[in-house]
Amino acid sequence: MKYSASVLRTIAIALIVTVVALGQGRAGPDTEAARVASFILGNGLQVVVIPDHRAPVVTHMLWYRVGSADEEPGKSGIAHFFEHLMFKSTKNHPQGEFSAAVAEIGGQENAFTSFDYTAYYQQVAPSALKSMMEFEADRMRNLVLTDEVVATERDVIIEERVSRVENDPGGLLGEEINATLYQNHPYRTPVIGWMHEIRKLNLADAVAFYNRYYVPNNAILVVAGDVDQQTVKTLAEETYGRIPRGTDLPPRIRPAEPRQDTMRTVTLRDERVTQPVFRKLWLVPSYTSAKPGEAEAFDLLAEILGGGARSRIYQKLVVDDRIAASAGAWYQGTALDDTTFGVWGSPVDDNSLSAVEAAVTAEIARIAENGVTEDEMEKAKNRFLKSVIFARDSQSGMARIYGSSLSVGETIDSIEKWPGEIKAVTSAQIRAAAVRILGSKGTVTGYLLPNGDDIK
Amino acid sequence: MKYSASVLRTIAIALIVTVVALGQGRAGPDTEAARVASFILGNGLQVVVIPDHRAPVVTHMLWYRVGSADEEPGKSGIAHFFEHLMFKSTKNHPQGEFSAAVAEIGGQENAFTSFDYTAYYQQVAPSALKSMMEFEADRMRNLVLTDEVVATERDVIIEERVSRVENDPGGLLGEEINATLYQNHPYRTPVIGWMHEIRKLNLADAVAFYNRYYVPNNAILVVAGDVDQQTVKTLAEETYGRIPRGTDLPPRIRPAEPRQDTMRTVTLRDERVTQPVFRKLWLVPSYTSAKPGEAEAFDLLAEILGGGARSRIYQKLVVDDRIAASAGAWYQGTALDDTTFGVWGSPVDDNSLSAVEAAVTAEIARIAENGVTEDEMEKAKNRFLKSVIFARDSQSGMARIYGSSLSVGETIDSIEKWPGEIKAVTSAQIRAAAVRILGSKGTVTGYLLPNGDDIK
Repeated sequence: MKYSASVLRTIAIALIVTVVALGQGRAGPDTEAARVASFILGNGLQVVVIPDHRAPVVTHMLWYRVGSADEEPGKSGIAHFFEHLMFKSTKNHPQGEFSAAVAEIGGQENAFTSFDYTAYYQQVAPSALKSMMEFEADRMRNLVLTDEVVATERDVIIEERVSRVENDPGGLLGEEINATLYQNHPYRTPVIGWMHEIRKLNLADAVAFYNRYYVPNNAILVVAGDVDQQTVKTLAEETYGRIPRGTDLPPRIRPAEPRQDTMRTVTLRDERVTQPVFRKLWLVPSYTSAKPGEAEAFDLLAEILGGGARSRIYQKLVVDDRIAASAGAWYQGTALDDTTFGVWGSPVDDNSLSAVEAAVTAEIARIAENGVTEDEMEKAKNRFLKSVIFARDSQSGMARIYGSSLSVGETIDSIEKWPGEIKAVTSAQIRAAAVRILGSKGTVTGYLLPNGDDIK
Repeated sequence: MKYSASVLRTIAIALIVTVVALGQGRAGPDTEAARVASFILGNGLQVVVIPDHRAPVVTHMLWYRVGSADEEPGKSGIAHFFEHLMFKSTKNHPQGEFSAAVAEIGGQENAFTSFDYTAYYQQVAPSALKSMMEFEADRMRNLVLTDEVVATERDVIIEERVSRVENDPGGLLGEEINATLYQNHPYRTPVIGWMHEIRKLNLADAVAFYNRYYVPNNAILVVAGDVDQQTVKTLAEETYGRIPRGTDLPPRIRPAEPRQDTMRTVTLRDERVTQPVFRKLWLVPSYTSAKPGEAEAFDLLAEILGGGARSRIYQKLVVDDRIAASAGAWYQGTALDDTTFGVWGSPVDDNSLSAVEAAVTAEIARIAENGVTEDEMEKAKNRFLKSVIFARDSQSGMARIYGSSLSVGETIDSIEKWPGEIKAVTSAQIRAAAVRILGSKGTVTGYLLPNGDDIK
């Protein structure tokens, strides 16, 4: 099972735009939007149905409104640990039976944990939907947790951490960059957890976490595919509907960041590093915490600045000046709380890392000073729309957008209005986003360097 | 009321040594040590009596085993806030009556909050001891907490934070250095609290904190002065003894630091800065968390390296080479968990900050390579003993050593063995401490610079 920092918003927007784009060509966006249905079962489970009749396939996803940023101090890694435990025995099914049932009918399954949510999904034929719901509803409350189960899986996770983080200098650096950028908010803690805390997670921790968070009123069921709303409702009531409501959870209010007044650097030197690289991060609002239009502007700024081969940074540093092997920008828009905007670069040949960093900064300054042209802004917006083809092929991508966005507090209405909000962004807003980034007094720059190297 | 990061261990050791030094000249150290008495009342209050009959004065200190590092996430500042609230009205005394009673008899009083403890003290004539105990015992449980009291004092604390931190670039930098050095442990959070969290502290927070921590079984009464053990016991039983035991608190186990693999910098540029300065910090064991002899070696390393005008750093950078206006080293030994070892320096005239930093690092490297001489080690140890004169005049200093050390989990036995442990440190141990510092892969260096300046 993989954990991910979050769904990349770039993909999210691309897919959302799809709905409307398809709709515009057929029945108009209102009709299209209206087709996504949402209702809440008596026990508090939110159900979202996204019809998609292009193929006889259904994506069944269950999202829990809990991620690593909801963990108690000292218990880091428990959310991701739990993602693993959910594949163990339940009172009704031995370990592996659920996965075998998926495999037997040629289905796919996976699970992932982020700062803000944990999700489980299967993609199967519509006839198997009820069976998936039965299995998923069963493990929501009927896991058999024992000391042995916990100890065995803890070893697996320790190995996972060794291979993903301890053995990867970039992974180690990323963790310490986050721990430096966030001075107070729990996004500073890695999703997989700190090693010394993973080692101490025990049965009592697992049981407490399970009983608190794995309840229908803390979950969102997203079903996308060749199925109608009434069928999903009936099946959900027959399966999930039988689970009693759990204790209601308080609002997810986490410690916020103080004002940041310092420029920070985090440097990791490691003999395993062959190519130096820098990463610079800013703390910025997410789609959930931003004022209207602000997050959309950061998304377009990231796209124009360094979103791919057509971006300014790529064209200037990699294509024209040939000083960087790679360079770009990103914006992590889908998050419950304030999030990160970032740029990165890695030099090519004898060029210095500091020259690459300066060139990237110069591109931000150019936009902060002169803004972007209408033409490149329209092209950037259209690059989202071009992803339609990808989205058409990704029913699970659509389900994932709804699940992740709803998990961090967005609404179906805000999800459906996204494409329009992106289209409405002005070049002045993009410039304002660049000015804000450039003028920030609080940033973190990470350097990954070969052993013994100074930053040159 | 002031808050302090902690009592400086240098002073602590100086004072402890006094007891033995005086003892040696009179009745021998064992007899001297035996004179410090400790007992526990039925309600769990620990009482420590330190006889000191040089003058008709008594120091009455009440220590609570709670500091800012025990606060819940998002509630930073509540421990220090409470220190203020303790000077408000109780059911039996209007606000100001306690302080007026102290002033009336020519006494002194104060209070302070650290990461690990909160303490209140008065210094008065022995005849007033019972009255002090009555007042102090009264406010342990009888504070009148209202929305108005909380709101009024919150404004006072916000002003205190503005003047101590917001208006002091060095204070701002210090906060972000700590938040960078500690990636997981609550020492990352300032004792006074983050401004945005102070603003939200309310009556419910205050009441919960008071009821949890302000109970006799979470407190240590230290009485030093012209009074005998039996008198203190009788008075303590008549006053504090009447307070019922509170709910027992769990062990103070806080989230520990992960392994740190990066070198970090934190830079603050501010127009109010006239003199650039650097501070470099390492995470090292405290007296409570160290292996035997380790903390003592760090104390002597700090003393030899940069403990004052006789130290290597001062002699080389300030006196001989005249490149620094000031420079030195410190070790924050008194702490419940892993703590900091640090060096700092500030250039004089046209010398660069980086030259000063390099020269300080060179002094650490010299000790790491060649160790220290027996002669300078003995002199460093003797500088502690020379503080005897200061200690003789400071009854409250002695009470403070016992209170702070016991609050962070040391024992009377370990406090009394301190001077001997310091004497037993070898030059090899001091060298090992320097090697450890120099070879650390995880450090934080802070730079305080005038606006617009680069580090030169």
